[in-house]
Amino acid sequence: MKLLRYGPEGAEKPGILDGDGRIRDLSGVIADVAGAAIADFGWANGLDLENLPLVDGTPRLGACVAGTGKFICIGLNYADHAAESGLPVPPEPVVFMKATSAIVGPNDNILIPRGSVATDWEVELGIVIGKTAKYVSKEEALGHVAGYCVINDVSERDFQTKRSGQWTKGKSCDSFGPTGPWLVTRDEIANPQNLRMWLTVNGETKQDGSTETMVYGVAYLVSYLSQFMTLHPGDIISTGTPPGVGMGFKPPQYLKAGDVVELGIEGLGMQKQKVVADL
Amino acid sequence: MKLLRYGPEGAEKPGILDGDGRIRDLSGVIADVAGAAIADFGWANGLDLENLPLVDGTPRLGACVAGTGKFICIGLNYADHAAESGLPVPPEPVVFMKATSAIVGPNDNILIPRGSVATDWEVELGIVIGKTAKYVSKEEALGHVAGYCVINDVSERDFQTKRSGQWTKGKSCDSFGPTGPWLVTRDEIANPQNLRMWLTVNGETKQDGSTETMVYGVAYLVSYLSQFMTLHPGDIISTGTPPGVGMGFKPPQYLKAGDVVELGIEGLGMQKQKVVADL
Repeated sequence: MKLLRYGPEGAEKPGILDGDGRIRDLSGVIADVAGAAIADFGWANGLDLENLPLVDGTPRLGACVAGTGKFICIGLNYADHAAESGLPVPPEPVVFMKATSAIVGPNDNILIPRGSVATDWEVELGIVIGKTAKYVSKEEALGHVAGYCVINDVSERDFQTKRSGQWTKGKSCDSFGPTGPWLVTRDEIANPQNLRMWLTVNGETKQDGSTETMVYGVAYLVSYLSQFMTLHPGDIISTGTPPGVGMGFKPPQYLKAGDVVELGIEGLGMQKQKVVADL
Repeated sequence: MKLLRYGPEGAEKPGILDGDGRIRDLSGVIADVAGAAIADFGWANGLDLENLPLVDGTPRLGACVAGTGKFICIGLNYADHAAESGLPVPPEPVVFMKATSAIVGPNDNILIPRGSVATDWEVELGIVIGKTAKYVSKEEALGHVAGYCVINDVSERDFQTKRSGQWTKGKSCDSFGPTGPWLVTRDEIANPQNLRMWLTVNGETKQDGSTETMVYGVAYLVSYLSQFMTLHPGDIISTGTPPGVGMGFKPPQYLKAGDVVELGIEGLGMQKQKVVADL
């Protein structure tokens, strides 16, 4: 299934994509794409998409999952990206948090924060937790995953690296977490470690990689993180980015108002953001 | 006012302390100590505590605020603590996130995570955001603060510093964020930069300091953080710890199952946690 949330910010309804790519209203079936509804998909047994109301037009999409308590990110998780950042591949996953207040819809504007001169992009595979996970093994891990989505881990490099310790300040600005368009359930992704991913700025390709070159894979990460903290339904793990971020160019290339960013991952849909100044 | 939340985990009700230190049920007045109820205290105008139902016995206390989207922490924010950590006072606040899933009641058990050998304590002044704050000045900042509370920023030092980059792993374990007992509204704390704070382990004093020696104060921190991300009602800022953490002793002293930790801040009440292994 391709689950989504549509409607105005803060008033999104749950929806599902039908076989013709049209949005069907799921609000008669589940309250939201969140919590119990993504921990157990029993509600989908025998669901006839043709009987669900068609949604008119092309509404705004919200983030594809609600109720996210933790937005966990993995740093330097592609060997080539570590190289372009001038950093070694870490011996264990590098873990940091993005503020959940950074989460926006897949096509919402990216806001350049006041004082920013180094706002950058990162296409990433997002893992959405379904069933609560604590101390789970690598073998059990995928059973706790509801599905996958596209994430743009937008980052302000000066805030991240030049404003005193820890990356939080450069990762958590409003709009820095476009999420979606769809939560694609796990059954639809045969192998999450072989998905092409790409990102363009103003139509020019910047990132063109594959989850095949991820250092620490999906099952490993879910198991690993669950040794440190309980993962709850709706928690997102953004798994790192392949080469081609703005900071890696010589000289660096950063986003400016008026730019258009497009990105996608095979089977998970695409995002398109306009870049605007946050006045 | 001293607001609190009482009852079983996940089913807490809002309460308020009366003049005799007894808990009164607030659930007929507000839905929870969260969101709109802490953004605007208009509901408290003319409130007669004597008319609110008395709560029997000594119920468990939950965290004193609900709906926390961000649990933001400030590192090395006391000059003496930076010294005991062997690190310089940072030129700007060091900001990191704790998982909100680490939040527990003030007297709940501290769970030592599997594999931990360096679980440590940190008494901290917590700021609870009331009104949404974005790009606010230092002069405006306190107007966005609902009140203050005691936080124990429990930390696993090996997870924090020896397990690859960023502090997240050592700060986010389940139970690592005891919060409360009370959300003391701002009007009751004349000067948040002159509060005595202390922590004991098994009755022995480990930390005995004052918010007077904080490097970056409450108003500065709220303003500073609001330049990077919007602060929402219920967000918590834990403002750093004075000297006396376990890692600062030679040799270091860490928590073990059976230990009892007590801590408090002048005017904000106290916490008491039993330390147990997380099996």
